[in-house]
Order: sequence, then C-alpha cells, then structure tokens
Amino acid sequence: MTRPANDTLLRALLREPTDYTPLWLMRQAGRYLPEYRASRARAGSFMDLCRNADFATEVTLQPLERYALDAAILFSDILTVPDAMGLGLSFAEGEGPRFASPLRDEAAIRALEVPDMARLDYVFQAVAAIRKGLGNRVPLIGFSGSPFTLACYMIEGGGSDDFRHVKALMYSRPELLHHILDVNARTVTTYLNEQIAHGAQAVMIFDTWGGALSSAAYRSFSLEYMRRIVAGLRREHDGARVPVTLFTKGGGQWLADMADTGCDALGLDWTVAPAQARTLVGSKVALQGNMDPGALMGSANGVAAEARRVLDAFGPAPGHVFNLGHGISQHTPPDNVAVLVDIVHRHSRAQRAGLATSDGATTA
Amino acid sequence: MTRPANDTLLRALLREPTDYTPLWLMRQAGRYLPEYRASRARAGSFMDLCRNADFATEVTLQPLERYALDAAILFSDILTVPDAMGLGLSFAEGEGPRFASPLRDEAAIRALEVPDMARLDYVFQAVAAIRKGLGNRVPLIGFSGSPFTLACYMIEGGGSDDFRHVKALMYSRPELLHHILDVNARTVTTYLNEQIAHGAQAVMIFDTWGGALSSAAYRSFSLEYMRRIVAGLRREHDGARVPVTLFTKGGGQWLADMADTGCDALGLDWTVAPAQARTLVGSKVALQGNMDPGALMGSANGVAAEARRVLDAFGPAPGHVFNLGHGISQHTPPDNVAVLVDIVHRHSRAQRAGLATSDGATTA
Repeated sequence: MTRPANDTLLRALLREPTDYTPLWLMRQAGRYLPEYRASRARAGSFMDLCRNADFATEVTLQPLERYALDAAILFSDILTVPDAMGLGLSFAEGEGPRFASPLRDEAAIRALEVPDMARLDYVFQAVAAIRKGLGNRVPLIGFSGSPFTLACYMIEGGGSDDFRHVKALMYSRPELLHHILDVNARTVTTYLNEQIAHGAQAVMIFDTWGGALSSAAYRSFSLEYMRRIVAGLRREHDGARVPVTLFTKGGGQWLADMADTGCDALGLDWTVAPAQARTLVGSKVALQGNMDPGALMGSANGVAAEARRVLDAFGPAPGHVFNLGHGISQHTPPDNVAVLVDIVHRHSRAQRAGLATSDGATTA
Repeated sequence: MTRPANDTLLRALLREPTDYTPLWLMRQAGRYLPEYRASRARAGSFMDLCRNADFATEVTLQPLERYALDAAILFSDILTVPDAMGLGLSFAEGEGPRFASPLRDEAAIRALEVPDMARLDYVFQAVAAIRKGLGNRVPLIGFSGSPFTLACYMIEGGGSDDFRHVKALMYSRPELLHHILDVNARTVTTYLNEQIAHGAQAVMIFDTWGGALSSAAYRSFSLEYMRRIVAGLRREHDGARVPVTLFTKGGGQWLADMADTGCDALGLDWTVAPAQARTLVGSKVALQGNMDPGALMGSANGVAAEARRVLDAFGPAPGHVFNLGHGISQHTPPDNVAVLVDIVHRHSRAQRAGLATSDGATTA
C-alpha cells in the first residue's frame, strides 16, 4: 500500500477527520493556464494530448506546480469511451465534439457492444505514467462520464441544448435507450476498474446531463445505471479503499437517492445549499463542492469572501471536499485560483481551530 | 367584471375546484406552427410581430384555433423592457438577441432608469387588441422577465452559457448589480400593472436564468426582486382577482422560499417531482407544469403516457395547471400537441371521477 504523503482528499472522501478541507478543481488542468495552452499547441489537438502519456502527464501536473491542490485528476475526456465504441470522435476547433456516426437507428443501437479495452489502453497508460510523475505527493483521481451522459453525445452526435434525439428515443422506444445505457454501464465499470488497476486512487462519475431529465426519468435512465457501476467497481486496490464520487449537474433535488447507490461521496453543483444537502444525505456520504465557478471572475476579495461563505455553509465537520460546482472556466484569471487555494486552506484550518470569526473572516 | 366563459385556468391558479385540469403551453404561439411561420414571414422580423397589435393578436390566437387550450398568452418578448431602456435590441437570424449597448461600466449602470412606459405602449395596445380578438373565450396571460433574467441579457449583451460578465459584477461590485435589479424591479412592476390595466387577467414572471445562481445568490439577486414586484402588483382588476405566477427554471430546490413571496402559483420545470413540490409549498400556492418538452418529440403513445404520468403525479386536488416545464420546442410535431391537449382534458376529468385506472390509463 502506497498512501500518498498528502492523503487529505482520500480521508475527506471517506469522512475521516482532516486538518483542513482539501480541494481540487474540476478541469483544473485546462485552458485558463498558459502552460496548458502551450502544451496543447505543441501536441496538436486536444485528443493528441489525451492519447500521449507524456503529454497527459505533463498537463495533469501543471496545476499542481502552481497551486497547493490536494489531488491530481487524470487528463482525459469522457468521450474516449464512445470513441472506442467506433463512433468516430473529432473536435472541430471552437465547436465542441462531433461523432461521425451518431446512434439514430435500431440496427446501429442493437449492434453496440462493450469495446475491447485495448482501444482504451492509452488512458490506462496515462494513469500509470501520471502516478509515476506524481510520485507520492497527492492522490490521482480517475473518472468517466455516466452512461446517460455518454448516451446523450452518442445519440445527438455532439452537444445539444435540448437533447431532442435522446428524448425522441426515450419517449418512443425506451427499450432501445435502455440497451445503450446497459452497454455503457458495463463498459464504464470495466473502464474505471482498469483505471483503478493502473493506479487511480479515487474515481468520479460525471453525469453532466442527468439534470436534463424529469425526476422520474432520471431515476430510470441515469441513476439506475450509475448504481450498477458503483456495485461493480473494485472498491479496494493495493490495500487502500478507492472512494467513488457521483456528480449529477442539476441533481440537487435527487441527492437522497444518489446517496443510496452505495457511493462514497456526491459532487454538488453551486445551486445546492450545503446544509440542505447534508440534511438530505445524512452521514451516508461525503460532499464535494460547490462554489460557483463564476465567482472566480470576481475580484480577489470577492473570491475569498465567496470561498469563506461556502466553507462556512458546509461547516468544519468531516466529509467535505472543496471544489467548484462545475469545471473551471477557460476565462478564469489564474491569480484568482491562487487566492482560492490559499483561503480554503487557511479558513478551513481556522474553522477547525474555532478561530473563524462570526463575519466569516479568518483571524488565523 | 367580465369573467371568461372558460375560467378554468383562473380557478386553478386560485386553487378553486375545476372540472378538469386546465392547460396552456409556454411559447404556444411559436415556430412549431406553420401558420405562425407564415405570419412571421409576412410581418418581417420577430420584433415586427411584437410591435404590431394586429400581428400580435393574429399569432396569439393561432394555437387556440387549433387546440382546446385553456388560456392565451400575450405574444411578446421579455426583452421589450431593456429595449425600452435604450439598450438597442436586435435579433440576428438564427443567433438570438443582441444588445448594441450592454451594461458593462459603472457610468452606464448608474445612468439606468425606469423607462417611459410610452415606449412600451405597443405591448399594452397588443394586450387590448388580443382581449378584443379573444372575445370571452379564455383568459389572457400577461408576462415579463424577472429582474435578474433581464439583467443577464442587459449585462451579457445577449445569451450566455456561463454569465461571466454578470458573475464578474456580482462577485466584485454587487452594489452595481443591485442597482440594475432595483431599476428592473420597479420597471417590471409598472409594466405588468399596465398589462393588467389593459386587460391581462393573469400575469407570470419568467426567471429563466435564476437557476444559474448559487442558492445564496438566488435569494439575494433574483428572488428578493421578484418579491418586490409581487408586492407592488395590482392583484385585482375589473372586479376579478389577477393571479401571479413565478417561474424560476432550475429553481426546484427553492420552491418553499418562492411560495413565501405572496404569489398565487409557481411554475415548475420538469426536473421537479410534483409530490415533493407540494410537500415544499403546502397549500400556499397553485403549481403549474411540468412535462418535459422533450416528451413531445416522442410517439403519440409516448406523449399520452407521459402526460398521464404527470397528471397522476400531481393528483386531482385543486391547484394544478398543466404546462410544459419550459417553452415548447420549434421542432415539436403539431399533431403531438393535439394528442397532449386531448389526453390532459380527458384523463384529468377521469381522475376527478375516480375513473383513472391504476396503470395510469384512462377508462373514460
């Protein structure tokens, strides 16, 4: 067992006491960092960064060089999975992802299968290379898209603001959508288990589009398949527990059901009131979040005030990982991230020491 | 007092018993109807339709000629208000709204004032003309955008997927954003009161972007200003109560606070579970919603099944107005709307007669 020197994240995800609130940021290796943009320019395309273990390691480590973050997250994309299924992924500059062969007819849907994991070996090699590059500093988080979120891209053929092809299928041939989701869930289970086998010390499932569903459809078409994945994951590797986090953007109303899946932690978007979330989930899971990424567009004082407000709303009890409520924006000033990391560490230490003043300012 | 021949909507909004569940559809006069597209081609631009009382009446009445809807809604746009404030509205084909002079600096923000209502007289003339054209059939709903939603467009200069200029202002100069919201709230109060004076029999406030806020920011920057509007509205006109409906898309977690504003009804998006909404608001308000507009992309059977599911989830108790959880999509097959209107009326009558079978099918 090789526990990282800084295991604050793993402890918090398992609701063990920590000296301060650990933080990492969704999409922390990304376009807001000039060194990332330079790496990407050298690599070529976005997928060239993902497919080359050296580049993936380089960009994964970049934010850790700048900021005292408490975790690294695999640099990759949720769409590696449907790409491996043969749907033909490409990224047109400034347009987002496109699939050459979206799933729109019954024959194509029935032909969908769990892909050979050899087609995703570049991801597992990246995990191993990043672990090596990280040394023993902080834990590495692996991840996947949720079955439903992957299905949205697979059916729409790219991004969408109304998911009308997905909805047309759901409300006319639900059994075909369930077939896609079943294949996706089995694929993601294997995919995450391989990431764990190659060194991921925690994993997270991103359900970016589950919030586009009705409450009833969410349970049937998204949550159920995440539950199956959680049930099928290796929860221990190399002698250590591997915590699993679920995150449905827009899922604040469904937290109690999400906590019942058997996961270790739930990601919260910024619309969720932390105290209400804690009431809904009790002591079943840790909570991760949930500052508005838009707050990083504010002044340094504004960033610090909002970070303190979020920490105070969660309180100092074990089981909180600080994060944004969604991926960091490419327009974020990097200096504001430095302010954020510093205030989260300082204010959360002060909270534990009982030194946070009543107006939310840190006296320590 | 001229109560409409079909006053089912008004009764349901005031939580009085009705023979069936009334329905109307957000954006029911719109691009999914070929007759709307023909009117728009004759009128010229979208704003030409809004600015001409004859055209506005024509398109407002079109869905009522096709379907047995229980209300008409003023054909207009929420951006009439910032346009009247001098921000220079235009609609580029296929691109959504643009403002020539977005509010980005302190001087422009400080100069913002409640506009002369004469600049919005075309809206009030449309209200009067539509009432005349409607005769005594069904009630006419007036509407406005919420102060925060209007501010989003005014500051971003158009649509946005991250509202980063709004957030930058909120998290650096909140007092400037509050100034915009105060002006907007006073403007909307007068604007809706004028719509009521000209014949609107119910009004609705659309908070399309309140769901982009953190729980704390929503209360401070959106809900508080809607509360002020509700407090300032004429709640009675021509001897009849004028019900007020608030709708925050993505606001399902905040329904209890919304119900405390003194409004008569809350609009629900499709992520909200109706039973949970009723638990949150008690008997304070009526509820309007909340079928996924995406369900109208399904088969006729799929549409009917989902409409029954939604009606069953609300149950037959007084205080439900059927609607979609968001505006109807331009891609909706008009025949599916006919299926929807028919099943809502038939199934809700059967529910009240105790004839709805346990599998959700209507035996009547």
